[in-house]
Formats: sequence, C-alpha cells, structure tokens
Amino acid sequence: MQVLPIPTPLIRRGDVIADVLIACSNLRSGDIVVVSSKAVATAEGATIDLTKITPSKEAIAWTERCGRSPEFRQAILDETARMHGRVLGSCPLAMLTELRPDGLSEGSLLVANAGLDLSNTTEGTAIGWPHDPVQSIASIRRHIKEKTGADVAVIITDSQCRPRRWGVVACALAVSGLDPLEDLRGREDLFGHTLSMTQEARADQLATAANTVMGNASESIPAAIIRDHGLSFGDFEGWVPGVEPEEDLFRGIV
Amino acid sequence: MQVLPIPTPLIRRGDVIADVLIACSNLRSGDIVVVSSKAVATAEGATIDLTKITPSKEAIAWTERCGRSPEFRQAILDETARMHGRVLGSCPLAMLTELRPDGLSEGSLLVANAGLDLSNTTEGTAIGWPHDPVQSIASIRRHIKEKTGADVAVIITDSQCRPRRWGVVACALAVSGLDPLEDLRGREDLFGHTLSMTQEARADQLATAANTVMGNASESIPAAIIRDHGLSFGDFEGWVPGVEPEEDLFRGIV
Repeated sequence: MQVLPIPTPLIRRGDVIADVLIACSNLRSGDIVVVSSKAVATAEGATIDLTKITPSKEAIAWTERCGRSPEFRQAILDETARMHGRVLGSCPLAMLTELRPDGLSEGSLLVANAGLDLSNTTEGTAIGWPHDPVQSIASIRRHIKEKTGADVAVIITDSQCRPRRWGVVACALAVSGLDPLEDLRGREDLFGHTLSMTQEARADQLATAANTVMGNASESIPAAIIRDHGLSFGDFEGWVPGVEPEEDLFRGIV
Repeated sequence: MQVLPIPTPLIRRGDVIADVLIACSNLRSGDIVVVSSKAVATAEGATIDLTKITPSKEAIAWTERCGRSPEFRQAILDETARMHGRVLGSCPLAMLTELRPDGLSEGSLLVANAGLDLSNTTEGTAIGWPHDPVQSIASIRRHIKEKTGADVAVIITDSQCRPRRWGVVACALAVSGLDPLEDLRGREDLFGHTLSMTQEARADQLATAANTVMGNASESIPAAIIRDHGLSFGDFEGWVPGVEPEEDLFRGIV
C-alpha cells in the first residue's frame, strides 16, 4: 500500500477543492483520496468570524474553565447546538462535545471543541467542519470523475482525541465509495474459530494512515492518496455511523 | 510512504519472532517494523491455559454481565491485577479495563479485556500481551541488527476501542528507536500562529497505518514494514506514555 501526500498551495475561500487536488496530484481510478475537513471547510467559506460573535455568560464561564476567548467558546456552543450536541467536559484549551449532526444514521461523535480550530485559519477566525461533509465529498468525487475520468473514493477527516492517550490521530467523518467498516464477525480466525466481535474501523484506519503524511502545522499537505490498497469500492456514501451511547463499551463512563 | 505487509507462517510457541520477520521480508535500515503483540506473545509462550483456571465469584458475575466463560473473565481479572489495573465497565463480550503496567512512565492504558483475546489462539487458551513488551521489542530490534545489519525501529501494537466509534484501530504499546509522540506545540501553523495544543500520536498513527495491511482474522499477516516515511529515528525505547486521568480531556468521564 502506498500513502502519497498531496501538497497544495494555501487553500482559500472560493477555491474548488477538487480542482486543487487534481492540479496537485496524479489521481488514478482506484485511489482513495483523503482530505482534511478544515481544507474543505475553508474552500467552502465555512470560516467563522469571531469578531462578529457576542459571547453568552455560558461562553464566558467556559473560557474561565478552559481558556481561549469567550467568542471562540461561543462559536463552539453554537456549533454544538447546530449539530444537536452537548458538552460533556473540558480540559485546558478544549471542551469535549458530543454531536449528532443531521444525516448521521447512528450514534454520535465525540470531538474536542465541536470540531472547531483556531490554527490554520486567518486571525480572528475559527474553522470547523464543512456544513455538510457528505455533500462535500459527493461533490469532490463527482467532480474528479468528470474532469479526469478517475473513479476514486473520498474520505473527509478530522483529528481525534482519545481517553488516556496523548496526541491526535485521524478519524473519518464521512466516506464516499467505500464501506467505512469491515465486519469480520462470522469469519474464521487462524485456528478456524468464528470471530464474534471484531470489526475493523476501515475508514478511520485509512484516515489515520493518510494523516501520517499530512500535516497539522504548516506543511500545507491537506490531502493524501492511498493507492495499491487491495480494497473493493462500494456504494456507501454518508457519515461514518457511530455507536449509540447505550451500546457503547464506554457507556455510563462517556 | 509505503506500508508493506509481512505474511508469515503460523506463529507458534518457541518461534524467534525476529527470525520469522527476517525470513519473510526484506528489511532495510530505516524501516519501521510494526508487529502485533499477540504474535510476539504467542512466540514467547505467554498463552494462558484457561482449563487450569478456577474462576472466582467475581469472574462468574462478569460472565453473567458480559458473556464469555468465567475462566476467561478470571484470566482478565488476573491480567488486570498483574498490570495494577481496574475494571471500569463492560458491554456484551468485553470488559473495559484501565492498566498501569510496570515500566509505563506516565498515565495508564484503557483497553478491552486487559488485552486478552480468544481469537487466533488454540482452543481453550487466551492470548494477551507479551509479559514485558519493551523487552520484547528491544530484543527484536537488536536481533534484526545483529543478523541483517539493518537498523530498524520497532513498534508493538494491539487493537484499540474508542468511545462512540464502531470497529478497532491499532495503538502502539511500546516503541524502540523512534519518538512515539511528535510535539507540534511552539511550531507555527500555515498563518504563522504558534500552535499551543497539537501533538501527533506518531506511534499510534504508524501502528494504525500498518494495521490497514495486517489482519485480525485469518490473514496470517502479524507484521508490516513502514518505509519511505521521512521520519528521524531517536533513542526512545519504552511504553508509549499515556495521560494521567486528572489531566485527561475525558477526566471524570472515563
């Protein structure tokens, strides 16, 4: 399997992200294109102008608890509300939010700061997810097919925090053209025993593999290609489904 | 970056895992060798004979709550105690355990079933982590250097569950020859702002990238090589440090 970075010029509002990816890489049919949610949101003009936000008392209280400006905290509360979410906790610099965005078929998403970030966006702004990531990747995939003839799958990613672990890994928010989960239940192990539990988080793993060559600092590598992966494409297009809290190994705990 | 699977014959007790990896691949200096903890534990004879275990009342209660045999539940309780851990919760088929194994410099590990597994091991046995994963990878790395001259880094992995997400990804238990975390704090983002928070979970990301070509079913691919990664090697050798519960974004929640 090859994991190939796609370095690009700085992404700006109004860019057509599919055109940028086409110009900066050599896409082939069968490639899986992994692209950062922040780059897509920036191109789509989803940047939030913090200078236009009036913080509530709740936002000020969150700033006292975990830092950053009340305007940023208010933007997180607004984004949490937009995605039918709630705040579960906090640490210095981050709130832990649980989101159920429109179109998510199952479960919820546990993310820091409702997906909002102050880095890699212009001064006085915050950047989060595209308003509708499924629509974004469907459009990217169709556009690549039309312009280049290449039939690719597309994954849109964000970084993910995990309990008790330092550092971020990537997760897949939405996928087009590939099953996001590989269900091994019913298959046999090395000794012929039937597996009763194992599922592979295929899209999250591919997102993380791509993230090893992408950058969270100033690398300007907002996307990557995964090639020679041996995976079959499929019809799936949507948010990666999550686990309902009551079915979760972490239930009652998170 | 290339991620190359290392298919092997079935690993058995008494195998020298470094010799198996050498025989089944073409290792070069600079390669990162990622190997499954279960394969190493099997070779080292760390298999647990469940037929020799007498379950306690607590083990029987865990079986009533989340299935599997009382002997398997007792093995998990024993492994949890060996690694100075505790049980936090459960779901069908799994207990959620928090472990602080000897040699872990910071934090703890949140894992399903104390790392024990009933798949890919012979009937009536369970398989978990090597008794001392740091010792295991140090030995593998030294052995590869002595036999082939190749200076490789080694990562030993297990699968990881995450709140609200279906499917497993990989995490790095221990690393030899590479910094497990890449601290981006103090570096500048695309717009010249200093990053105040971001760390990359480098070892976990590499483990997950490798896991995309390894197998949890009957693939017999217990290891992979990561090549052309552009990362510098370092002196680190040890468990990947974790977050102390009181510093955790998930604190009070997990």
